Amino acid sequence: MSWIKDPAFTAQSPFGPQTLPYGVIDAGSGPVVAVRVGDHALPLRSLDLGARLSPLVAGESLDDLLAAERPLWSELRARLTELVQLPATPVGADLLPLSAVRSLLPFRVGDYVDFYSSRHHAENVGRMFRPDGDPLLPNWTHLPVGYHGRAGTVVVSGTDVVRPHGQSRPPGADAPGFGPSKRLDIEAEVGFVCGGPVASRVSTSAAAEHLFGVVLLNDWSARDIQAWEYVPLGPFLGKSFLTSISAWITPLEAFSNARLPTPAAPNPLLDYLVEDQPWGLDLRIQVNWNGSLVAEPPFAEMSWSAAQQLAHMTVNGATVRPGDLFGSGTVSGADKRQRGSFLELSWGGKEPVTLADGTERTFLADGDTVVLTATAPGPDGSLVGLSEVAGTVVSGE
Amino acid sequence: MSWIKDPAFTAQSPFGPQTLPYGVIDAGSGPVVAVRVGDHALPLRSLDLGARLSPLVAGESLDDLLAAERPLWSELRARLTELVQLPATPVGADLLPLSAVRSLLPFRVGDYVDFYSSRHHAENVGRMFRPDGDPLLPNWTHLPVGYHGRAGTVVVSGTDVVRPHGQSRPPGADAPGFGPSKRLDIEAEVGFVCGGPVASRVSTSAAAEHLFGVVLLNDWSARDIQAWEYVPLGPFLGKSFLTSISAWITPLEAFSNARLPTPAAPNPLLDYLVEDQPWGLDLRIQVNWNGSLVAEPPFAEMSWSAAQQLAHMTVNGATVRPGDLFGSGTVSGADKRQRGSFLELSWGGKEPVTLADGTERTFLADGDTVVLTATAPGPDGSLVGLSEVAGTVVSGE
Repeated sequence: MSWIKDPAFTAQSPFGPQTLPYGVIDAGSGPVVAVRVGDHALPLRSLDLGARLSPLVAGESLDDLLAAERPLWSELRARLTELVQLPATPVGADLLPLSAVRSLLPFRVGDYVDFYSSRHHAENVGRMFRPDGDPLLPNWTHLPVGYHGRAGTVVVSGTDVVRPHGQSRPPGADAPGFGPSKRLDIEAEVGFVCGGPVASRVSTSAAAEHLFGVVLLNDWSARDIQAWEYVPLGPFLGKSFLTSISAWITPLEAFSNARLPTPAAPNPLLDYLVEDQPWGLDLRIQVNWNGSLVAEPPFAEMSWSAAQQLAHMTVNGATVRPGDLFGSGTVSGADKRQRGSFLELSWGGKEPVTLADGTERTFLADGDTVVLTATAPGPDGSLVGLSEVAGTVVSGE
Repeated sequence: MSWIKDPAFTAQSPFGPQTLPYGVIDAGSGPVVAVRVGDHALPLRSLDLGARLSPLVAGESLDDLLAAERPLWSELRARLTELVQLPATPVGADLLPLSAVRSLLPFRVGDYVDFYSSRHHAENVGRMFRPDGDPLLPNWTHLPVGYHGRAGTVVVSGTDVVRPHGQSRPPGADAPGFGPSKRLDIEAEVGFVCGGPVASRVSTSAAAEHLFGVVLLNDWSARDIQAWEYVPLGPFLGKSFLTSISAWITPLEAFSNARLPTPAAPNPLLDYLVEDQPWGLDLRIQVNWNGSLVAEPPFAEMSWSAAQQLAHMTVNGATVRPGDLFGSGTVSGADKRQRGSFLELSWGGKEPVTLADGTERTFLADGDTVVLTATAPGPDGSLVGLSEVAGTVVSGE
C-alpha cells in the first residue's frame, strides 16, 4: 500500500502511478513543479531526488526539465514511480488537493504548430467548403499539412475564452462587417510538447529524444473570421486569440502500451516519413459540452503520427527547441459521434446538437463550457490519462 | 566635434547620431548591449546612464529594454544622443570597430508574423499563380493579410542560408519528389520589433507604445516547396527554415521625418484600421545580389502600415508581447526594378536577371550572397539607416 491515500490514485484511474504527469502549481507561495497523483499535486522541490535530478525541477516552470535529455527524463520518472509507491511518506512530501491549488501554464511555449492529420476531419471540411471538388487536396496523403499558430496565446486549461472580435463577410454581402464571432468553435486535438537538445532533420526513429510528453489541446476557432481571412496564407486571427492545453503533461513513456500503427497510407511515403516502430496512439477522447458527452474522437485513426509530424516539421532544416508545441489537428472519426469540432458535429451549423438539458447548439454560446478528457490503455490493464482541458466562453464586450 | 572620430558617423551617413540603432555584440567576453555609431559599436554597460536606465541595457540581450515602456525608450535615446555628441570621451566609453566584433540576434523572438501588404507584390504573385482570376483576392483590400511564421529560426544578419530540403511536385508529375529546393528565393521586407506592456486590441493611435524599432528582414523562401504544401493552410516549410533580420534595431523615433500617408485604400476601412496620423514610411530599400544592385523596392508604396498590422493582429483579443516581431511582407513597387523577390524579378523563372559579372540568375545558386540595405530621410536633411541584412547560400548536402 502506498502512502498516498487518494481513491483516484489507482491503476484503474487515469492518474494512478502509471501516469505521473508533470505540471506547475501555485499553492500561495509561488510556482512550483509537481506531479499529479490522483486528485492531488505532489510538489517536487522538497523531495530528495538527488543532485542530478533536483535541479531539473527546482525552477518555476518545466523549462529546465524540457531542456534535459531523455535518459534524465527516464531516470526522474523511475525515481518518482518508486517514491509514490513507498509504504511510508517520504521526507519532504507534501500532498496538496488539486482543488486547493492553482495550475499554471507549465512551460514557456517556443513555436506552436498545428497540423491537420485526421483524414475524416480534412474530408468533412473539404466537403463543406469545396462541395464541387475532391474533399482531400492532392498534397494531403503525401505530407502532414500544418501551419504555425500563435505561441503567445497558448494558455492553461481553465482560462476563460473571451469571444474574439473580427472581420467576417456574411454570405452574399459585398463588404465585410466587424463584431464578435458568431461561429465560435472548438477543435479537439492532442498536443505534443518538445524537449531535448535543439535539433533539425529529426528522423522518425529519433522522435522519442525530442518528444517529452502529451497534452490535450483545444484549438478554439472562429469559423466566420477564418472563412474570410484564410486565403491565400492560411488561418490567422480565426485561431490566434486562444489555444488551451492541459495543466499536466503526461510523459511519452506512459503511453508504451498505447502504441499502434497509423492507418496505412494510400500511396508510398517518401523515406523521411517512414517509421521503424508504431507511432500511432490509442487515445480515446471525450468532448463534453455543458456536461453533455457530445463526441468521442478516436486518436487511433489519425493518418499522421507525432513522429512523422516532427520529421516533416524539421526536414527542411528548421530546428525544434525545448518548449516547442505541436497539435495533431482536430481528431475526428468516421462516425458522426466521433467528430472533434462543432463545425462537423452540426455540419456547418445546419444540424443542431441537442445537449442533455434539451437545449440545442450549433456553435458556442456565451457561458458555455467545453471539457476535453482522454485515456489510453496502460500496462497490466491500467488506464493512462491525459489531463482535462476546459474553457468557458465569456462575452468579449 | 564629437569624440567619435569615425567618418561614417555623420548626419549624411546612415549611422550618424540621428540613427543610433541598438544591437548585441560579442567582442570576446560575452554578449553586451551596444549602439551602432558609424562603423563602430559602443557598448552601453560601462557608460554612466543613471540608475533608471542602466538596468535596461545591463543584460545579454535587448529583452529588458523591449519590456520597458516608451518614456524610458525616449529617455535612453535622448541620453545616448547627448553622449555621442560630447566633445570629450565620456567615462566608460569603449568604441569597437564592427569588423572586430560578432553581432548576435539581439532579442528573444516571441511570435513572428509575416504580412503581405504590398499590393504590387500580391498582384504579381496572383497573376503568376492564378492567371485566370482577379490577381487580388477579395479580402486583400479590407485587411492586412498575414500568417504566423517560425520564431525559432529567425537569425541575425550574416548567418549562412543552408539550402532547405523538402517535398515538391514537378509540373505534370503525379507524385512529389524530395530534395534540395531548386527555387530558393528572397523576400525583401521591413520588420517591426515589438515592446512595451503586454496588450491586446492595440488601437492604431496606441501603436507607438508597442513598436520599439525597425529592422530589415529577408524572408528566405523555397518556392517549389511552398507551391506544393501551401493549400489550404498557408506557407510552412517553404519559409520556416530561416528568416534573417538586421543585427541593429533602428528605434521608431529615428523615423519621425520619414512618416507619410499610405496609398489611399480603394474601399472604406473598418474603424479599427483607420489612422489618426500617417504611419507609412519613406524607406528606400536596395537589393544586392552578389554585389549587383538588382532592385530598389519603395516601402512608401505599401498599402498597410505597421500600425494597421498591429491593430489587426490584436483586434481579436490576441496579445502582443515584448519580443514579438512582424514583417511587412515583400516590398515591391510598380516598376520591374522595384520588385522585392526573385520570383517577381524573373517572372517565375522565365526572365533571367543579369548580374554585374554577366552571369544570369533566376533563383539563388549555392554561394550567392544577398544583401538588403535601406535608408530614410532624417531630420535636417540627414539620412537614417536600417542596418543591412546579409546571407550567403550554402549547400544543404
